[in-house]
Amino acid sequence: MKAVVYKGPFKVAVDNVPDPKIEHPNDAIVRITSSCICGSDLHMYEGRTAAKPGIIFGHENMGLVEKVGAGVKLLQTGDRVVLPFNVGCGFCRNCQRGYTGYCLTVNPGFAGGAYGYVAMGPWRGGQAELLQVPFADFNALVLPPGKKHEADFALLADIFPTGYHGAELAKVTPGETVAVFGAGPVGLMAAYSCLLRGASRVFVVDHVKERLDKAKEIGGIPVNFDVADAVQQIRDQTEGRGVDKSIDAVGYQAVAQGSPAAGGKAKEIPNIVLNQLIEVTAPTGALGIPGLYVPSDPGGVDEAAKKGSLSINFGRLFEKGLRLGTGQCNVKTYNAYLRDLIIAGRAKPSFVVSHELPLDKAPDAYDKFDKRVDGYTKVVLHP
Amino acid sequence: MKAVVYKGPFKVAVDNVPDPKIEHPNDAIVRITSSCICGSDLHMYEGRTAAKPGIIFGHENMGLVEKVGAGVKLLQTGDRVVLPFNVGCGFCRNCQRGYTGYCLTVNPGFAGGAYGYVAMGPWRGGQAELLQVPFADFNALVLPPGKKHEADFALLADIFPTGYHGAELAKVTPGETVAVFGAGPVGLMAAYSCLLRGASRVFVVDHVKERLDKAKEIGGIPVNFDVADAVQQIRDQTEGRGVDKSIDAVGYQAVAQGSPAAGGKAKEIPNIVLNQLIEVTAPTGALGIPGLYVPSDPGGVDEAAKKGSLSINFGRLFEKGLRLGTGQCNVKTYNAYLRDLIIAGRAKPSFVVSHELPLDKAPDAYDKFDKRVDGYTKVVLHP
Amino acid sequence: MKAVVYKGPFKVAVDNVPDPKIEHPNDAIVRITSSCICGSDLHMYEGRTAAKPGIIFGHENMGLVEKVGAGVKLLQTGDRVVLPFNVGCGFCRNCQRGYTGYCLTVNPGFAGGAYGYVAMGPWRGGQAELLQVPFADFNALVLPPGKKHEADFALLADIFPTGYHGAELAKVTPGETVAVFGAGPVGLMAAYSCLLRGASRVFVVDHVKERLDKAKEIGGIPVNFDVADAVQQIRDQTEGRGVDKSIDAVGYQAVAQGSPAAGGKAKEIPNIVLNQLIEVTAPTGALGIPGLYVPSDPGGVDEAAKKGSLSINFGRLFEKGLRLGTGQCNVKTYNAYLRDLIIAGRAKPSFVVSHELPLDKAPDAYDKFDKRVDGYTKVVLHP
Amino acid sequence: MKAVVYKGPFKVAVDNVPDPKIEHPNDAIVRITSSCICGSDLHMYEGRTAAKPGIIFGHENMGLVEKVGAGVKLLQTGDRVVLPFNVGCGFCRNCQRGYTGYCLTVNPGFAGGAYGYVAMGPWRGGQAELLQVPFADFNALVLPPGKKHEADFALLADIFPTGYHGAELAKVTPGETVAVFGAGPVGLMAAYSCLLRGASRVFVVDHVKERLDKAKEIGGIPVNFDVADAVQQIRDQTEGRGVDKSIDAVGYQAVAQGSPAAGGKAKEIPNIVLNQLIEVTAPTGALGIPGLYVPSDPGGVDEAAKKGSLSINFGRLFEKGLRLGTGQCNVKTYNAYLRDLIIAGRAKPSFVVSHELPLDKAPDAYDKFDKRVDGYTKVVLHP
Repeated sequence: MKAVVYKGPFKVAVDNVPDPKIEHPNDAIVRITSSCICGSDLHMYEGRTAAKPGIIFGHENMGLVEKVGAGVKLLQTGDRVVLPFNVGCGFCRNCQRGYTGYCLTVNPGFAGGAYGYVAMGPWRGGQAELLQVPFADFNALVLPPGKKHEADFALLADIFPTGYHGAELAKVTPGETVAVFGAGPVGLMAAYSCLLRGASRVFVVDHVKERLDKAKEIGGIPVNFDVADAVQQIRDQTEGRGVDKSIDAVGYQAVAQGSPAAGGKAKEIPNIVLNQLIEVTAPTGALGIPGLYVPSDPGGVDEAAKKGSLSINFGRLFEKGLRLGTGQCNVKTYNAYLRDLIIAGRAKPSFVVSHELPLDKAPDAYDKFDKRVDGYTKVVLHP
Repeated sequence: MKAVVYKGPFKVAVDNVPDPKIEHPNDAIVRITSSCICGSDLHMYEGRTAAKPGIIFGHENMGLVEKVGAGVKLLQTGDRVVLPFNVGCGFCRNCQRGYTGYCLTVNPGFAGGAYGYVAMGPWRGGQAELLQVPFADFNALVLPPGKKHEADFALLADIFPTGYHGAELAKVTPGETVAVFGAGPVGLMAAYSCLLRGASRVFVVDHVKERLDKAKEIGGIPVNFDVADAVQQIRDQTEGRGVDKSIDAVGYQAVAQGSPAAGGKAKEIPNIVLNQLIEVTAPTGALGIPGLYVPSDPGGVDEAAKKGSLSINFGRLFEKGLRLGTGQCNVKTYNAYLRDLIIAGRAKPSFVVSHELPLDKAPDAYDKFDKRVDGYTKVVLHP
Repeated sequence: MKAVVYKGPFKVAVDNVPDPKIEHPNDAIVRITSSCICGSDLHMYEGRTAAKPGIIFGHENMGLVEKVGAGVKLLQTGDRVVLPFNVGCGFCRNCQRGYTGYCLTVNPGFAGGAYGYVAMGPWRGGQAELLQVPFADFNALVLPPGKKHEADFALLADIFPTGYHGAELAKVTPGETVAVFGAGPVGLMAAYSCLLRGASRVFVVDHVKERLDKAKEIGGIPVNFDVADAVQQIRDQTEGRGVDKSIDAVGYQAVAQGSPAAGGKAKEIPNIVLNQLIEVTAPTGALGIPGLYVPSDPGGVDEAAKKGSLSINFGRLFEKGLRLGTGQCNVKTYNAYLRDLIIAGRAKPSFVVSHELPLDKAPDAYDKFDKRVDGYTKVVLHP
Repeated sequence: MKAVVYKGPFKVAVDNVPDPKIEHPNDAIVRITSSCICGSDLHMYEGRTAAKPGIIFGHENMGLVEKVGAGVKLLQTGDRVVLPFNVGCGFCRNCQRGYTGYCLTVNPGFAGGAYGYVAMGPWRGGQAELLQVPFADFNALVLPPGKKHEADFALLADIFPTGYHGAELAKVTPGETVAVFGAGPVGLMAAYSCLLRGASRVFVVDHVKERLDKAKEIGGIPVNFDVADAVQQIRDQTEGRGVDKSIDAVGYQAVAQGSPAAGGKAKEIPNIVLNQLIEVTAPTGALGIPGLYVPSDPGGVDEAAKKGSLSINFGRLFEKGLRLGTGQCNVKTYNAYLRDLIIAGRAKPSFVVSHELPLDKAPDAYDKFDKRVDGYTKVVLHP
């Protein structure tokens, strides 16, 4: 079959690779109809991880069940399914408590596994024609048959639940004000989720016009941090109080205010968003942090950052009595509910999709998405 | 001052009564700008309670602060405020835990007090020019100055929070399906609240065309129980599964299916909605019951009903592992958040208001509202 | 192998039956070391259910893994395990949300399955030498090897978690007062669990001296309802306020106060405990109802009771703003935590065990347990 | 009246000062019977804050109501009461949601006020004969009359609820394992609270033998960090897994392992405990941080620490998907429940009290407590 294979920094190719097989009675083979490129794929693509050439990319996968193992009970050939990016077993200590992003079975020695990702276990990615899905009854979310909502459903594999997870980590409840930092796909999904949950006002902070426009389109209040300090702008619109809750949809590759305006490359300041969240959130509030932070970053700006150690205004955090939640999204906790919102016509997350392309356009798509040119925001590949 | 005074069954008058006074340092006097007539006022109006002539009606009150006592700290003369229908002290065992509908201070010997209502303490109602508000810093919710959103804000005194309370009692979360029984003002507010909280599909059961139309208008799915069994209709639309959550916005004066079509008076069957909720809710679900049930009803259909004892399908409830929550709404738990949704333009509950009238039209409004003629659904009086 | 087989009302025998086999890749076969007789086994034993002769009893099972299917991943031959009485699949809509007592896979057409129980699916019971365990990785809870805590661990299959579930349904939190109705094994486990969770005072209502003595022994406050009205006794000890929370560990076969003292057979009044819970619980409180109620009871005291329809003081329930939770325990939600309390020496639930017997004593044990003679309270069979 | 007055670094005196008066209708005057010295008083005592000479110390206060203002409704002369260290109004946005430690009324411009503490508002301390208590109905917790449990109840003002708050911030639930760092009075109260809430095993980390002995006495597992790395010791006792939850009862004045053994002064490393919590907590766990961190510390070990900025292993925190909660305890959320546990004989927190002394021994007590000599751990002053 054809698959997107990592060749080395800034290089992927569509290669012929062996078809996956049923290796365990609970496996299923899924014929991929949609597989998205994720911002986190770029970490590997740019060579900023330990990923070795040969890895097949793709953790945002959806398709049709082609074959099932002898132990599979519910799933049937022909079922249309979307797969959470995290691979879970369903019965370990963490999975059974709902923490499927921290499965102890599928990636021995580590809490959590995923498809097509370095250090996340032996699972091949789905930017390919076929995908092996372990513990298939547990992992596959069944969708209505047909072609409807294809792009919306594809986003159930990762970014819609991940954005929603940000709202959940911050415990956003109806009537609250929220500040979402970052208006990339995950940030937009977080803002969208806050509004779905009934937030009264959702400030969305970024400095890319197109992203801020999208944020406004869905009902958010855009805040451009190149114009003025984001925290101050939000305070000015909340009688000085700040917001009830805040969400970091940026992560460790955050850049400083105003930097692009300065003409040069934006300066990376890994702790800037976290400290802004602390400043902008009112006492007794909470921070949701789905934006990625890593314990080891070879490309970190300094020795501390390389070890994932960041300087946090902990005194302020404490003084305000803030709570925070972090970590990878447990996709299965939310995906059935979000699917039902899509089916009912109450959510349409595909507004973030910029390109739908055949699999063999992947190398070009990676190149352009990495460079953020030609409006490449969110690409869905259709093998 | 002028006030709406109960004179006896089916009779109210606008009388001159003495002005209220500051009687305790924490009191405030509020000049009423809006006071709604509530469906529960009709229980007294129809003579189905122990209410004695002379009582001043009105527990859905809003206005401007006219005067404050020496102990009042935050509230200031001129502040525009809305008052929760429940009167709370703010410091008893129940108030301090947020159960302001069950205050132990304001109505000695009973858990809970209200303005202008029989057996709810000595507090006069607000269908009048002025209102005495005890523990004013605690009870008054401050609104933006001016006239904007007057009818929306007036609904914060009772029915918007009460409808929302139904969603909260049923713990409605994003993506869930809900069945709301009753599309009167509280039922519509419950359905509206479920949608604000992110429910995927909200079925609204009634048999009055205008109400079902309203339900549809706000995004609900109307279910007319005169056409066919409501439970069956909902099952048919949920693959036989029923709903995740259900809300009873009818209460003990429920009527049987089809009865008006039979040409006669609808037959009251006090347990019908509760048992339908049990049937329509899927195993592991929950029931929210803001609809009123009373421990003593002189007009009950039989001896058991007169004592508030109802025949419940408890075996089914248990088999399905359902949870349920009941009781009067603790308005203060929600009103600030719902106010902020109105201010942000994200909620506009006044769609239920059918009439805005001067105070001296109250007798006519009571008569027509009680008879449900001329489209009288929800009346706001402006003294 | 030998197994306890139901022969008809008031008759069980230890018969030779075929050994169970691995029928599905996720099955395991467990060699039973302990299997308890449960009060709910007596419903079948007494012929008050639709159970047909031939059924193998036993849903409180523990033992050693004898063999595993090809799909089993974690569980290994020789592992010491205890099995939740409910059989779950781990991946249906209900199991994945933690509602393993309402599995949609293992007992098609119904939410919930169990071992050795009428209408709970095809699963044979464990009062036998061997047991087939489906979805073994999901269902089996691994215990430390050896013989230690055997009787304590055996109670993890049902009654310890079920009692704990009562406390959870009532949301008992530290410092609260609780009334537990019923001091049979489940009631004692409920009271014990409330104390483990930090309740300040736990009233335990029964009229059997030995049970009330046990309740006192573990730190509860015994209330004998033959001496005086239980509700009044508890009010007298709580300054008239009643309790914060209450638990029904009796169910539909409740009997009236004072009846045995009257010399005759205790009169069954199926709604008595539920209405007492409503009376004894303070406004804003909650009721946990793990005690069994059924939608169909051929032996019910009247036509309504036969259909599981009970007369409930719903007006009072509403006036007090009470919440309630019902249903079978989802054993997997709690059993690992309760196991760890046993291992740490902080819980020792086996204080309720009255007899440990070899399997072939089962017929005699059923007879005596059913008659409540010779101190038969809780029997553990060791095949 | 006599009161403990701050005179400058390392100096307090018992002076004669004017009696407090009823200044607002909701005030009460309380005659102090017990007032404890808190570890946080030593920050001021040592001159490491902006506290000016003249301030009256004491925020852990209990006594008898001497007089009440005209607005006070429930409280009566002669009532025995304990006062939360935080002063709240009961009606601001934060107080009404239960965040009484972040009151917006009593200390204008800041969220939170307290008695006798620098920057926490104008409220005098209670290490004195009399105390002015604002919003007395809201702030005073009424106790049973008499002298019983005096020392236990005195701890309800601060350290028992503060320790409990640590358990609540970490959401410790029954059966979980917990690591508490710090076995001073708050750490011991945190460990004690975890056990009250049903934790299975509670590791308590310190390096002072007497404290570790106390921890063991109440059922904790002592871990001496001078013997070996605390994280490693705990991992060794949890099969390498670490704990479910952890609590920081040390705060910013943390010291490194082994330092006292080195014979010199312990080296302050303000982030050491936070990073150990991150290491010792298993993925999906939570951290409760009641231990004090401040946004401005003139005595900080470096420039960052002086601003409350700490280097945190955020990458690890994220990788593990941990949550954390911080901040001052909202005493009123817990104190009534903890009082009821004391009354019921289920909690006896006074085991931490080392000295009970008359008021005029305060100067000597401060001196010895600050030097940690003669077993001075927790002092209760009786004016």
